[in-house]
Amino acid sequence: MTDIAQEMENMSIKEEDKLGTGDDDFIVNPWEVVSTSATGVDYDKLIKRFGSTKIDDALIERMERVTGKPVHHLLRRGKFFSQRDMHSILDMYEQKKPFYLYTGRGPSSDAMHMGHLIPFIFTKWLQDTFDVPLVIQLTDDEKYLWKDLTLEQANHMAIENAKDIIACGFDIEKTFIFSDLDFISNSPAFYRNMCRVQKLVTYNQVKGIFGFGDSDCIGKISFPAIQASPSFSSSFPEIFNGRSDIPCLIPCAIDQDPYFRMTRDVAPRMNCLKPALIHSTFFPALQGAQTKMSASDPTTSIFVTDSDKQIKDKINKYAFSGGGATVEEHKEKGGNCDVDVAFQYMTFFMESDERLEEIKKTYTSGELLTGFLKKELIEILQKLIGEHRQRRTTITDEVVRQYMTPRKLKFDYPPPTPPSEKKKKKKHKNTKAV
Amino acid sequence: MTDIAQEMENMSIKEEDKLGTGDDDFIVNPWEVVSTSATGVDYDKLIKRFGSTKIDDALIERMERVTGKPVHHLLRRGKFFSQRDMHSILDMYEQKKPFYLYTGRGPSSDAMHMGHLIPFIFTKWLQDTFDVPLVIQLTDDEKYLWKDLTLEQANHMAIENAKDIIACGFDIEKTFIFSDLDFISNSPAFYRNMCRVQKLVTYNQVKGIFGFGDSDCIGKISFPAIQASPSFSSSFPEIFNGRSDIPCLIPCAIDQDPYFRMTRDVAPRMNCLKPALIHSTFFPALQGAQTKMSASDPTTSIFVTDSDKQIKDKINKYAFSGGGATVEEHKEKGGNCDVDVAFQYMTFFMESDERLEEIKKTYTSGELLTGFLKKELIEILQKLIGEHRQRRTTITDEVVRQYMTPRKLKFDYPPPTPPSEKKKKKKHKNTKAV
Repeated sequence: MTDIAQEMENMSIKEEDKLGTGDDDFIVNPWEVVSTSATGVDYDKLIKRFGSTKIDDALIERMERVTGKPVHHLLRRGKFFSQRDMHSILDMYEQKKPFYLYTGRGPSSDAMHMGHLIPFIFTKWLQDTFDVPLVIQLTDDEKYLWKDLTLEQANHMAIENAKDIIACGFDIEKTFIFSDLDFISNSPAFYRNMCRVQKLVTYNQVKGIFGFGDSDCIGKISFPAIQASPSFSSSFPEIFNGRSDIPCLIPCAIDQDPYFRMTRDVAPRMNCLKPALIHSTFFPALQGAQTKMSASDPTTSIFVTDSDKQIKDKINKYAFSGGGATVEEHKEKGGNCDVDVAFQYMTFFMESDERLEEIKKTYTSGELLTGFLKKELIEILQKLIGEHRQRRTTITDEVVRQYMTPRKLKFDYPPPTPPSEKKKKKKHKNTKAV
Repeated sequence: MTDIAQEMENMSIKEEDKLGTGDDDFIVNPWEVVSTSATGVDYDKLIKRFGSTKIDDALIERMERVTGKPVHHLLRRGKFFSQRDMHSILDMYEQKKPFYLYTGRGPSSDAMHMGHLIPFIFTKWLQDTFDVPLVIQLTDDEKYLWKDLTLEQANHMAIENAKDIIACGFDIEKTFIFSDLDFISNSPAFYRNMCRVQKLVTYNQVKGIFGFGDSDCIGKISFPAIQASPSFSSSFPEIFNGRSDIPCLIPCAIDQDPYFRMTRDVAPRMNCLKPALIHSTFFPALQGAQTKMSASDPTTSIFVTDSDKQIKDKINKYAFSGGGATVEEHKEKGGNCDVDVAFQYMTFFMESDERLEEIKKTYTSGELLTGFLKKELIEILQKLIGEHRQRRTTITDEVVRQYMTPRKLKFDYPPPTPPSEKKKKKKHKNTKAV
């Protein structure tokens, strides 16, 4: 075993923490989110298990101070609740130094559901607020490896999903979207970073972090290097002019954190910066917070392709109610907002804090009935999805091609310092070949 | 475990056979060739262990009959001694159907030694004789993963090695040379075949076939898919016009066979053809046949960059002699050609069968002294390497660039049958998504 391998074997995270199983009543890893509680995953326990930091009032206040804007309601309401190194990103912003955003999606179906949109809605807000480049990875290779799909099917889903992502309103001058299957085989810089990560991570480590087993295919085993690589600005020379020192901030659902714990472990040994992270909670299924929504079961979620009628029917029929069994019981005991799916959806999509607070108060007291709560949510979603559908019709194949073409964005970066200059600046460090 | 995984778990090759260890007095795998016998590896036992077929007189006669030419002395003298599916390749040739050649090299040093040239010398003969395309893979990624090298160092060695390979005389209109690091990130078709193989091979299988362990990096674990992919003509759409049905023949040293046993296992499930193989023995180190030569120890081998004086000195000083300890003893007992390295080298490089037979006879009888034997070998190698050195000086960076540019070669292929046409021709087969 090399020194490097030995060093990583000794990583301090406990085995059960790495796998996201632990002894609590929930499982969280990139392929499985299960909770036995009606209120869903215990996020405080998850933060402790993953070793990230809770987003506190001080961070939110600082974000508002440095940007001069109120934060997004998803942040204000604790939907983005956990982070790593967000203060360093704000330091950069205050010093007018560049950083960039990286998020992604595993395209497992042609249509995305509302839960899939959350990271993109928030990422768009980050992009607008901080005025930074954004790279979006579509892991069609991952879906090919994990699902019973052909390469062509997985790639087609990536392109279809790109249309929904573009419809979220990302600025074409600031956004690069790529499918792994198309981009890796067209990008020497990205592929080289993949190789660098693959040299530094052992089977033991991915077994510990992701729970891979000996019967898993070698594609799965090496895949984490592919999700790690966009965290390094050197993977995108077209955007960053060959610079390897532009820090990265990754907004994502917290189930993706294991990939980036691994990335943060290898980054220093690649002479790269550790990516910062900001994590969201999970968007509940219509049936309740015990499970993550499934794109393969249409009754568990509202899709961005659903018609007004489908939205209405699904909410009315499937959305788990925290209200009383009868009007009388509801008026007497009140509704439970913590488990009521319609209310929970409102906390994600209703912009007005005042109206949300009013609904919470009157629903909890029993004054507001489930039917009215659902009616208001249906209106919000019909408007949101209607507008999304409308925008999506304008996304032609040519527009997709433009977003997905590796290219310079609207940001300028001075070229990197040549190695000879660097040597003069700092003393020679004896490092292993990576 | 999927059906596919289960199926491969049940592969009939015994564990020790896969690892190339067995209970014999030699170890043969892609990273280690060790024998405790002065005559080297027992190749008959190795054929049994690997499950290949010995090249017999019938095959050699057939080759001479269908090509109308005598076979190369390396084949005549048993240096290429083992094969898989060579008769199928000859069937193709007789029916005037196309096939192609694939060989490669792991570039672990700037300079190649004589042993490295053997597969290329023979491959050139195959190319000239059968008039077929040739792809040559330089696995700079493999060397990066296995050695303490940077990507840049490994890639540089690949380019330097390409010059020596080109100097073997390959026809530029029939030959494509590629470095993995450069080509994979520029070839969607190749990368997709890599993914296909990576989906079909489990960790258990590469552990069994290659002896990988849990502390190996994930790059090593998935690497076999990279060496497998050039076996499929669909990896080179520029050359084969998108055809996936052109059979492949791989000339290589037998230590590379494990990669292609794996490839032959997955090929049918990818709807691809199994590659055929023709295997060489190992070229002995100057010190004798117990070990394979090492490019990192200059005293074990003659390099293509060695001067006339270096060749002379190395042969005289290091070449293990099968002769008597004194002239008197030699004249009395004779020399042993089976262990005499100078004689063994002659069997690789001397073209005249008559002269070789005469040397064998007079050396065995004691009539020919070691010094004279070595002198004749020195002359052969000085001429061979001198000519190689001369040709190499003419290989400019521009010539290398031409050989290494993905492009159509001089062969024409009708485009593949569209899937709709195929369906009409054969019944629908229900196959798993790969």
